[in-house]
Amino acid sequence: MVYLAYVKLLITIVQDADAPGLIKALGEIGIQSTKLSSTGGFLREGNTTLLIGLEEHQLEAAKELIREKCRTRTRLITPGVPLAEAPDPFLAQPVEVKVGGAVVFVLTVDEFVKV
Amino acid sequence: MVYLAYVKLLITIVQDADAPGLIKALGEIGIQSTKLSSTGGFLREGNTTLLIGLEEHQLEAAKELIREKCRTRTRLITPGVPLAEAPDPFLAQPVEVKVGGAVVFVLTVDEFVKV
Amino acid sequence: MVYLAYVKLLITIVQDADAPGLIKALGEIGIQSTKLSSTGGFLREGNTTLLIGLEEHQLEAAKELIREKCRTRTRLITPGVPLAEAPDPFLAQPVEVKVGGAVVFVLTVDEFVKV
Ligand code: NI
Ligand code: NI
Ligand code: NI
Repeated sequence: MVYLAYVKLLITIVQDADAPGLIKALGEIGIQSTKLSSTGGFLREGNTTLLIGLEEHQLEAAKELIREKCRTRTRLITPGVPLAEAPDPFLAQPVEVKVGGAVVFVLTVDEFVKV
Repeated sequence: MVYLAYVKLLITIVQDADAPGLIKALGEIGIQSTKLSSTGGFLREGNTTLLIGLEEHQLEAAKELIREKCRTRTRLITPGVPLAEAPDPFLAQPVEVKVGGAVVFVLTVDEFVKV
Repeated sequence: MVYLAYVKLLITIVQDADAPGLIKALGEIGIQSTKLSSTGGFLREGNTTLLIGLEEHQLEAAKELIREKCRTRTRLITPGVPLAEAPDPFLAQPVEVKVGGAVVFVLTVDEFVKV
């Protein structure tokens, strides 16, 4: 059993598509995370809740990776409207949708136990 | 990235049946929540864990909604016992079962980050 | 609605195989837990996240049970290598694999509400 001081727990909600890249990037700097599946609410559909445990000195690096891997960006999507149902050519134009985003609750951990 | 002071995280366990009504009611007063699926333990079968993030000044309103939408109440259930197997008419009488209930852990958030 | 002072929330990640025994043992001393399904990260594949709520005076007993039910131990596994593909008899020898383990984040709860 190992006790570590100054542990933080980040309860982090990200889009499903951004989760694997973030988990990998965190792992590369020695930060472990566990994935819970979640739905709705803080982000548009299809999100994942990550439990990220770290020491205080790793907090800035973790936030930097979250910003980098989950930044809100726009993507051009062409709506899949059948031609017959979209006589107005405007409807077939690509539209901008927002993807990404993250919500992070940083919690102070009283005690961290590893068995 | 946005930092907000005095954020609270409510880890809230409710019955599956009460979750949609609570999520909707919270949303109507501007409080977002994320749904995790969970099982057993704090409540009778079929429960949902909600992560509810809010500012301190919204805490009382959120607790009021949880009380309202998840209050413990009884419901009359007629057990679906086939007649042939229940010669004793007492067995076919409606019985009271408890539904609802909620368990809320209110946590102080060190830092809230929105990307 | 019941308010209890000095409540702790243990966010505990254990191996799937160890979860039922731990939940049962905690229940036998009056400690309730809720199971979330989770994947990857802190432990090898197939882990479960438990939300364990307790009063401060129960903390040592809960940690003792976690240590007992989830201790890291080795198990001998004979790799299922077809004989034709394993001409070297060494490859068919049983190997030691680690099982068990747990990670516990102990959080102080501001306020505990039961509806
Ligand atoms: Ni370190
Ligand atoms: Ni406000
Ligand atoms: Ni007690």
